[in-house]
Amino acid sequence: MTRQLHFNLFLHDTGHHEASWRLPESDPNANLSLAAHQHLTRVAEDAKFDSVFLADSPVLWSDPGRRPAGKLEPTLLLAALAATTTRIGLIATASTSYNEPYNLARRFASLDHLSGGRAGWNIVTTAGEAAARNFGLTDQPLHKTRYERADEFLQVSTKLWDSWTDDAIVADKESGIHAVRDRVRDIGHHGTHFQVQGALNVPRSPQGWPLLVQAGSSDNGREFAARWAEAIFVANPTLAESQEFYADIKRRAVAAGRDPDHVVVLPGIVPVIGDSPAEALELEADLERLISPEYAVGTLATVLGVDVGRLRLDEPLPADLPAEDEIEGHKSRRTLIVEWARRDNLTVRQLIGKLGGGRGHRTFTGTPVQVADTIQHYFENGAADGFNIMPAVLPSGIEAFAAKVVPILQERGLFRTEYTGRTLREHYGLPRPANTLELING
Amino acid sequence: MTRQLHFNLFLHDTGHHEASWRLPESDPNANLSLAAHQHLTRVAEDAKFDSVFLADSPVLWSDPGRRPAGKLEPTLLLAALAATTTRIGLIATASTSYNEPYNLARRFASLDHLSGGRAGWNIVTTAGEAAARNFGLTDQPLHKTRYERADEFLQVSTKLWDSWTDDAIVADKESGIHAVRDRVRDIGHHGTHFQVQGALNVPRSPQGWPLLVQAGSSDNGREFAARWAEAIFVANPTLAESQEFYADIKRRAVAAGRDPDHVVVLPGIVPVIGDSPAEALELEADLERLISPEYAVGTLATVLGVDVGRLRLDEPLPADLPAEDEIEGHKSRRTLIVEWARRDNLTVRQLIGKLGGGRGHRTFTGTPVQVADTIQHYFENGAADGFNIMPAVLPSGIEAFAAKVVPILQERGLFRTEYTGRTLREHYGLPRPANTLELING
Ligand SMILES: Cc1cc2nc3c(=O)[nH]c(=O)nc-3n(C[C@H](O)[C@H](O)[C@H](O)COP(=O)(O)O)c2cc1C
Ligand SMILES: Cc1cc2nc3c(=O)[nH]c(=O)nc-3n(C[C@H](O)[C@H](O)[C@H](O)COP(=O)(O)O)c2cc1C
Repeated sequence: MTRQLHFNLFLHDTGHHEASWRLPESDPNANLSLAAHQHLTRVAEDAKFDSVFLADSPVLWSDPGRRPAGKLEPTLLLAALAATTTRIGLIATASTSYNEPYNLARRFASLDHLSGGRAGWNIVTTAGEAAARNFGLTDQPLHKTRYERADEFLQVSTKLWDSWTDDAIVADKESGIHAVRDRVRDIGHHGTHFQVQGALNVPRSPQGWPLLVQAGSSDNGREFAARWAEAIFVANPTLAESQEFYADIKRRAVAAGRDPDHVVVLPGIVPVIGDSPAEALELEADLERLISPEYAVGTLATVLGVDVGRLRLDEPLPADLPAEDEIEGHKSRRTLIVEWARRDNLTVRQLIGKLGGGRGHRTFTGTPVQVADTIQHYFENGAADGFNIMPAVLPSGIEAFAAKVVPILQERGLFRTEYTGRTLREHYGLPRPANTLELING
Repeated sequence: MTRQLHFNLFLHDTGHHEASWRLPESDPNANLSLAAHQHLTRVAEDAKFDSVFLADSPVLWSDPGRRPAGKLEPTLLLAALAATTTRIGLIATASTSYNEPYNLARRFASLDHLSGGRAGWNIVTTAGEAAARNFGLTDQPLHKTRYERADEFLQVSTKLWDSWTDDAIVADKESGIHAVRDRVRDIGHHGTHFQVQGALNVPRSPQGWPLLVQAGSSDNGREFAARWAEAIFVANPTLAESQEFYADIKRRAVAAGRDPDHVVVLPGIVPVIGDSPAEALELEADLERLISPEYAVGTLATVLGVDVGRLRLDEPLPADLPAEDEIEGHKSRRTLIVEWARRDNLTVRQLIGKLGGGRGHRTFTGTPVQVADTIQHYFENGAADGFNIMPAVLPSGIEAFAAKVVPILQERGLFRTEYTGRTLREHYGLPRPANTLELING
């Protein structure tokens, strides 16, 4: 079979543009509405997308004064969506810094059972002091420590998912034996961050493990991804950066002893689709105008680790910003933004305009054919295995993409016209993991 | 309006009888099936039940060799059920000993939004060393400490649920103001067990707080219930004990400054329904015969805190059992069992037969009219505000109860024929809690 694209829809209330809730067509409380999420997911499933995805952090993430800040917990929201969909994958973000592995491994195993093998986990380490303060800490753990804990968290979780063999349950009514007892094993994990006895109280799930997804781009983040991630979200503002990232991740995966085809790279794109090139450009300009720079400048200052007073709207970024290694938050996001501003010689106001739509992700602006061409160009030139679709405005942005861009790619043989698999792993062409405890014990 | 009964269906795979999975009609993997749970919930909703309920513990709870031991995480399973039901309440068990309040308060607020105000939380402190060992501990915290932590957990959770006022969101597209900023407040909780800054990242939910449910019966448990619980599950093997418990809880609620009508007492019953009294008794005997005493005796020994070798199947319980205050697990369950065995002069084998069906809950055996009569008798004689229905075999047990017993009670005006409310609190006749932070600040 020829290689085909993969598409994930990044669900985001009324859209990824921070002011999208203010558009006349938007339901400003879509963030709390199951029906709104059901609609978005249905559109993506009808278009044969591989998956939908929910971002998350255990903290009030944005200023509730300025945009819808309430976020339903993703594993619950996706469990609800599992009940009204049949094929599309369901990827929830959850933090390794502020959860216990027994509880979280169990939630993902449960989601995988509930959905018939459609669960994915976007593994994040959660930057920021504010989140830490919701969990008894006064400051966030160091970036390096967070990734070390994440690594051990994954060791524990995979052991828990493997604590029942696939053939543990025999359910023999006659003899009264439900599971063969020595096929359900304690894991007896004694590590640095965790002591977990096991076994999990959920049998091995349809996919064995949920699909493991990751989006950290710092050096620690890439090493973690090379070791564990099977699908990777990334923000790349240019083709060259996507190519660099793509090559680097595949190289690191090989160095970690993995098949590079089993690490699917999905850059984020904001499609802005017009019937003519001029109409598309106008739409893009409309979106930039929706931003209120006075508010956005504060967010930017936080990411860059500087006092907000040091940023002037109509001047370029200050020359003496803190370096990536002085920052404990989103290291790679900071660097991406700084390099972008310097390369394109942007003022703070211009930078904010670009970030408001895509937050560092690439905007693909044009007619349906132009957008399809760009997607194909990335796909065929070592920059992407598929894309994380992040419409500025929802649901209209995904409806337009599904109606206009997807058929072009299907016609070109670059995207499926029907689901061929049942599980999320099958959609992404990824293997079901063998049971590691079986390998060790047997 | 005349006082009416409340019914909760205690969901339990193929039924509460430990051997129910072995019956010819049972799907032995119903525990992992969304469809099976959807069916049970639909039957209960069609019968206008107030709620369905899932028990839980973050540990392998029963011997996987002997019965289906896998349990999908309840908040996820109920989120999935929320998507395919419209009226019935959804009560999930979750542990205050092995969760963080920010995460758990958020999950219940999310379930309440997803379900349009139908979420309930059965608050448990989780007995047992095995659970502790999944969370980095070598033994369970002391019974008293667990309840102290539970109390502070509730303080934090209710503050988090109240961290947004009900009128916080204005969603003014023109001005770009989504929430009024000073209506979203940090909670700044600094306590013994928890330090939580807040605010919650979920706005106040339809019910304000989920319905608070509790089932601990020890002295600590009853004090906690009197302080926090709005619905109470309890296992009482006799009418007299139900009356004692009912009076005691209402008294304690009044002493805690609460309206006793806002504490709904729901004893558990196992209805065994036959078309004639003889048929019902035969059904009950069939169920007792399904037990394998060699296995059950181990479970009994654990609850009683004795070595299994000390229990002889055809003799009464030993005279020198550990007292309730020497036990750190389910204190009140131990006492209930011991008193029952002594009062009825049961051998260990007979005791196991009774417990296998109802685990200490009362079995109501008889024709539909007899069962309805007993229910009415409890209800009208200070023993119950409603019942936690725990069929020995599912789905047949709830289908029979819904088809045969519910109509009799409806005819007598003792149970609703249509839902009159939308939320779980409305079904149970409980008020929506005022926002405590509003009261303090305003
Ligand atoms: C598409 C995408 C989605 C992300 N979603 C989340 C998220 O839901 N929660 C979160 O804490 N971080 C999220 N991140 C941030 C990354 O997990 C990571 O923290 C960030 O890219 C910085 O990388 P680093 O942590 O390796 O420095 C996301 C990043 C990308 C590119
Ligand atoms: C109907 C009912 C349901 C219960 N469900 C749970 C449960 O899901 N999880 C749990 O740990 N304990 C559960 N319990 C046990 C109680 O929470 C409590 O631990 C037990 O009754 C002993 O009381 P005590 O803890 O006050 O000693 C349940 C009890 C009853 C009566």
